Amino acid sequence: MITLKKARSIIKAALSKGAEAGLNPLSVAVLDAGGHLIAFERSDGASPGRFDIARGKAYGCLMLGLGGDAIQKRAEAQPTFTDAMNGLYGGRFVPVRGGVLVRDGRGRVLGAVGVTGDTSDNDAVAAVAGIEAAGFTAEA
Amino acid sequence: MITLKKARSIIKAALSKGAEAGLNPLSVAVLDAGGHLIAFERSDGASPGRFDIARGKAYGCLMLGLGGDAIQKRAEAQPTFTDAMNGLYGGRFVPVRGGVLVRDGRGRVLGAVGVTGDTSDNDAVAAVAGIEAAGFTAEA
Amino acid sequence: MITLKKARSIIKAALSKGAEAGLNPLSVAVLDAGGHLIAFERSDGASPGRFDIARGKAYGCLMLGLGGDAIQKRAEAQPTFTDAMNGLYGGRFVPVRGGVLVRDGRGRVLGAVGVTGDTSDNDAVAAVAGIEAAGFTAEA
Amino acid sequence: MITLKKARSIIKAALSKGAEAGLNPLSVAVLDAGGHLIAFERSDGASPGRFDIARGKAYGCLMLGLGGDAIQKRAEAQPTFTDAMNGLYGGRFVPVRGGVLVRDGRGRVLGAVGVTGDTSDNDAVAAVAGIEAAGFTAEA
Repeated sequence: MITLKKARSIIKAALSKGAEAGLNPLSVAVLDAGGHLIAFERSDGASPGRFDIARGKAYGCLMLGLGGDAIQKRAEAQPTFTDAMNGLYGGRFVPVRGGVLVRDGRGRVLGAVGVTGDTSDNDAVAAVAGIEAAGFTAEA
Repeated sequence: MITLKKARSIIKAALSKGAEAGLNPLSVAVLDAGGHLIAFERSDGASPGRFDIARGKAYGCLMLGLGGDAIQKRAEAQPTFTDAMNGLYGGRFVPVRGGVLVRDGRGRVLGAVGVTGDTSDNDAVAAVAGIEAAGFTAEA
Repeated sequence: MITLKKARSIIKAALSKGAEAGLNPLSVAVLDAGGHLIAFERSDGASPGRFDIARGKAYGCLMLGLGGDAIQKRAEAQPTFTDAMNGLYGGRFVPVRGGVLVRDGRGRVLGAVGVTGDTSDNDAVAAVAGIEAAGFTAEA
Repeated sequence: MITLKKARSIIKAALSKGAEAGLNPLSVAVLDAGGHLIAFERSDGASPGRFDIARGKAYGCLMLGLGGDAIQKRAEAQPTFTDAMNGLYGGRFVPVRGGVLVRDGRGRVLGAVGVTGDTSDNDAVAAVAGIEAAGFTAEA
């Protein structure tokens, strides 16, 4: 289980990673294993629609049990499939990197993190940094 | 008509086929001729969002009167058509293999089965195995 | 966690309870703690739209952390609130008895069961019978 | 403008108020003037569906330019109006207390806060405490 305290740690470390690396202002969503929001923060200067993107990246990972990298590859190979997932999950599905599964030491999925604001690759780096700083295992 | 007893037989045989073949944990939905759910089971270890995918595969087959193979080919040839079907049917449309029509001996459509969890091709094999074990004719 | 085996036990016992009591044909949905479907069965003779009702009863219980009885009372006292919940959760919210929380021995919510087909009160009795037969604690 | 730093202050003070007063675990959403999420936190032990309720309370306040108290009174006097607002705003409208407008010293609306978890009246008290602790004016 990801407690609120752990979710705050994830967000804090992900935003710090973005600041250190000079990335654009990031937004970070932390979801539980069922896809429900635990915590979210949007940095000053980020565009207003960032919550839906951050959640959509994380939500898709949870629903399919895959990291954002695998989902982005599926989108490139078979776009009609990932387009369908977007409709299927009520629009909460963004098939690019930056969604990262959170696993415990036994490999169980505890939740997912979604980061948006910079390139998808950089978003994923920040998400992984946040997850690992909180003591969990990341599947990007 | 697919009775609940027959739907259980389909699910049981499809899951057994998956286990025998060493597939990932499968989820199986059985729909009646009107696209309404009769029965569903999600194997332990499958990701939480599998119901929508299983139903979406079967629902698309029923709405168009086609097997998942024909729908996937249409998606490859004309993706804007299947993307539109997804919106048209409220997101309940997944244009890949693994959705299979259930027909009786006279060729009448009684319902459809949707399987998800492994590759789309393997999902379809498990769905066909379930349908045939229950004494129906499958159109993959 | 409610395994698929446990979900089958819940459904079997709930349907048996309905048959013993001479109720109308029942439909039973079992959801995990995040509101995602594990298993569903619709009895022969039930109307086609029963899945959405069964899931909607269980889903509402999970989202609010309340049993169907408390939700029905809230609906009677403040209908605009429960009407709003229906829109909020994309229509997956049915504020009547028959949705029942599933708890473990420590009181943790593991999921929920939704039953529909007879009166709401009888639906709840069948749901509780299913949950208790599987060794869990029911909050009706 | 409500900066992320200010949003964190609002959430921290609202959660502290709830803890001091012995309320159920609260969830707090902070929205900007356009209704877009800046920050959200869900306390451990709260049910999973709390984000939608917290946002829905705050979103309704912003869309109508009214505090949750005025909206709840309107719901009691004319429920068909607030039911329609729920559909109008895509389900993001919860017409009960606990949504509070955030104003600056000149009376301009900067955003809104939504709190959920205890009674609607107590939710509103926590929201006001959070807003005032951050140096803004609250319209409950």
